[in-house]
Amino acid sequence: MPTEIEADDEVGTLERPETTLIQCLEGEDLVGVQQLLDELSIDDQRRAISRCSAEKQAKLLTLLPSDEAAELMEHLAESQAVEILEDLPSETAASIVHELPVQLSGDLLRDMDAEDSSAIVEAIADIAEKTTLSERISYPNETAGALMSSAFIAFPVESTIRSVLTALSEGSENYSDQDVQYVYVTGESEKLVGVLRLRDIVINRPSRNVGDVMIAAPHRVVVHETLEELDDHFEERPFPGFPVVNESDRLVGLLSRTAVQEALAEQQADSYLKASGIVAGEEIRSMPLRTRCFRRLCWLAPNIVLNMFAASVIAAYQDTLQAVIALAVFLPMVSDMSGCSGNQAVAVSIRELTLGILRPVDYLRVVIKEGLLGIINGIVLGCVLGAVAAVWKGNVYLGLVIGGALALNTVLSVLIGGLVPLVLKRFKVDPALASGPILTTCTDMCGFFLVLNLATIAMAKLA
Amino acid sequence: MPTEIEADDEVGTLERPETTLIQCLEGEDLVGVQQLLDELSIDDQRRAISRCSAEKQAKLLTLLPSDEAAELMEHLAESQAVEILEDLPSETAASIVHELPVQLSGDLLRDMDAEDSSAIVEAIADIAEKTTLSERISYPNETAGALMSSAFIAFPVESTIRSVLTALSEGSENYSDQDVQYVYVTGESEKLVGVLRLRDIVINRPSRNVGDVMIAAPHRVVVHETLEELDDHFEERPFPGFPVVNESDRLVGLLSRTAVQEALAEQQADSYLKASGIVAGEEIRSMPLRTRCFRRLCWLAPNIVLNMFAASVIAAYQDTLQAVIALAVFLPMVSDMSGCSGNQAVAVSIRELTLGILRPVDYLRVVIKEGLLGIINGIVLGCVLGAVAAVWKGNVYLGLVIGGALALNTVLSVLIGGLVPLVLKRFKVDPALASGPILTTCTDMCGFFLVLNLATIAMAKLA
Repeated sequence: MPTEIEADDEVGTLERPETTLIQCLEGEDLVGVQQLLDELSIDDQRRAISRCSAEKQAKLLTLLPSDEAAELMEHLAESQAVEILEDLPSETAASIVHELPVQLSGDLLRDMDAEDSSAIVEAIADIAEKTTLSERISYPNETAGALMSSAFIAFPVESTIRSVLTALSEGSENYSDQDVQYVYVTGESEKLVGVLRLRDIVINRPSRNVGDVMIAAPHRVVVHETLEELDDHFEERPFPGFPVVNESDRLVGLLSRTAVQEALAEQQADSYLKASGIVAGEEIRSMPLRTRCFRRLCWLAPNIVLNMFAASVIAAYQDTLQAVIALAVFLPMVSDMSGCSGNQAVAVSIRELTLGILRPVDYLRVVIKEGLLGIINGIVLGCVLGAVAAVWKGNVYLGLVIGGALALNTVLSVLIGGLVPLVLKRFKVDPALASGPILTTCTDMCGFFLVLNLATIAMAKLA
Repeated sequence: MPTEIEADDEVGTLERPETTLIQCLEGEDLVGVQQLLDELSIDDQRRAISRCSAEKQAKLLTLLPSDEAAELMEHLAESQAVEILEDLPSETAASIVHELPVQLSGDLLRDMDAEDSSAIVEAIADIAEKTTLSERISYPNETAGALMSSAFIAFPVESTIRSVLTALSEGSENYSDQDVQYVYVTGESEKLVGVLRLRDIVINRPSRNVGDVMIAAPHRVVVHETLEELDDHFEERPFPGFPVVNESDRLVGLLSRTAVQEALAEQQADSYLKASGIVAGEEIRSMPLRTRCFRRLCWLAPNIVLNMFAASVIAAYQDTLQAVIALAVFLPMVSDMSGCSGNQAVAVSIRELTLGILRPVDYLRVVIKEGLLGIINGIVLGCVLGAVAAVWKGNVYLGLVIGGALALNTVLSVLIGGLVPLVLKRFKVDPALASGPILTTCTDMCGFFLVLNLATIAMAKLA
């Protein structure tokens, strides 16, 4: 439910860029908008635009010439850009997409609802561009096809160094914003046969044939390879980029180390969001309230069910609890502390899986390593909390029940926490997404059960 | 407490690479070790080495010639490499460090205990290398000085294109593993005055002066600039790298976009670890058990105190709880569910801060945006849990108490969750580190208080 000017922008913000931006947009003052954007840093642009209503954002991008609108899009956060593009009429969106680097437009279209993205692709006039873009969108996220750049330079294997030099200097305008370090060499059907370093071109005689000085059969990656596989390529070889070929070995793009690193940083950020319960896609607070509420509830709904499940253990032991009400003080402490211990084990397993130090089959190693640690930390934490309980109520047995339950539950939690990511990974579920709720439910249930069951056994000494 | 061969490696692992590695090391069989390492992928190398005891790891690196040991170091995860280097005699470590790229050796030495790293630097024979390395370690983590590469090529401004070409082809062996795209031009006292693209060298006549064809006064970054500032440089300009100068404008290094992206990915991974309670440095399960237990307890200890603080609220309301024991079932549910809602708000704030859409002063915006969402999600969740409570005990008032408490606590939690990262950021505390415990303590206390206080008020209808 975006309003014209959002409430928080009306309070004491007269001098703020967003206020000026909104005023310019209301007056359809293109020059004013351009001047303002020129003056703002990228962060300020992002911020000012995120303060405008969806309607004003659409007006801004319609008002600007499409090349300037595209430049602005490049500066926005991707989730912001996707939201804005979805709200534009497909023709306007298509003219902006036309000006974007194909790698970015592919990313944005892939992140949209299928309906919106196909409408935009349909609205693109140039047939060749439409085909390229449709092909690009067809590559799944985080594969070589999605991450590659289409801005590579290739020459047929029979060219001379001289003709390459001429072509490069004639086309130097076109290459000016590219990172030309390698020139690729193709054979029949545009199959990749070699690579030339710019250095080789400089050093060799101009009359020589490209085929004679090229590095033949260079290392390549295939469009469908995943981010993990791509990272391995780069880890094992020191090159700044690799040519990308399709299944029939035709050269289709260029994958840079930077693109892979950017995607890895995005993936890490994404894991953090998922682990915190932002699971249905990134949220930015300028999104409609309805979307934000719904997306967050998607995560909370299964959690409330899991929570009821865990709490049912307490319900089963109401009599014990009624007899020793002090237990109620310690129930959340035991489950919370075990949850913390378990989360640490989850994080270490996810990290070791990412680093390749742990395989999803290494259960035994995790059990031994976490088991030993759990016993030690369990004893330490159990002694602390047990002592507090014993002193508070002047009852050693209460201390033994609470301390014993925390110690045992710590061992269980680090074992579960350490193993859950391995199991999830093996079943191709994202460990960052599901480890937390599974762990919490287990540690809550076990914690409640241990405290209340031990207390029932020791009832005579506690009441 | 590393044992000779760790327990889990003795169970059915006869054919595993780690077993072969350990056997070769025991027999001091250098050729066998080299053969094995050649056959293994990087992941398998990491895994096999992480399965060896600290003693065996030291033996491995002492046995290998130092250039091969250095190559192996490059393949290990950084925290692994740091652990191993620390355990080596300083002379052996120094001879390996000598073979490493200076950027990596800087990273490793910076991550060590100061005592270990200065012993290694002291043991380096070459005076020039010792100075370079000491200087490098002096730059704080995640600044341009720490991230830059020292492998840049610079020529004095009075050189000709011809002399540059000659120098490049003569030195082409040295540059073969470098990513030569730019050549820098320096004036007096090695001050940066210009940059030459490799393309400019190819295209221009060899007799021309470098000073005439260079791009003068190129964009540069300064050694002390932080990762955030560096990311801004790259976001605002399309270049693959920038020259790095010190405070007196002397050219000291080359910063690549890839290095910044790698550092950002590391930072994201680090935030995730910190948010999960791995706060005292990365943990790998091959580290000594003592270190692992101690580091994890560093995080658990303050948490147990915060937990006691929150639980004291329950202790204050023991009479209410004794009278309506059903409340004990719902106490952890209300606090857990609010914790989940609050964590979502924390994640969105941290993400918006990272993207630059939110400034640490934008309290009002967060209050409005989270407040509205909290009211809606609070009502939804409150109705669900309230209905469950009312039906379970056949008491509408119990439903009102539980549902009302959850609804109110959800609003509080998203407000606190949304604001805490801003406050922490403003006081220069890492939000990923401290937001979780602060949030949990607040939502627990408020949740317990709301349930028990509302119940005390409605006692007549509940008991």
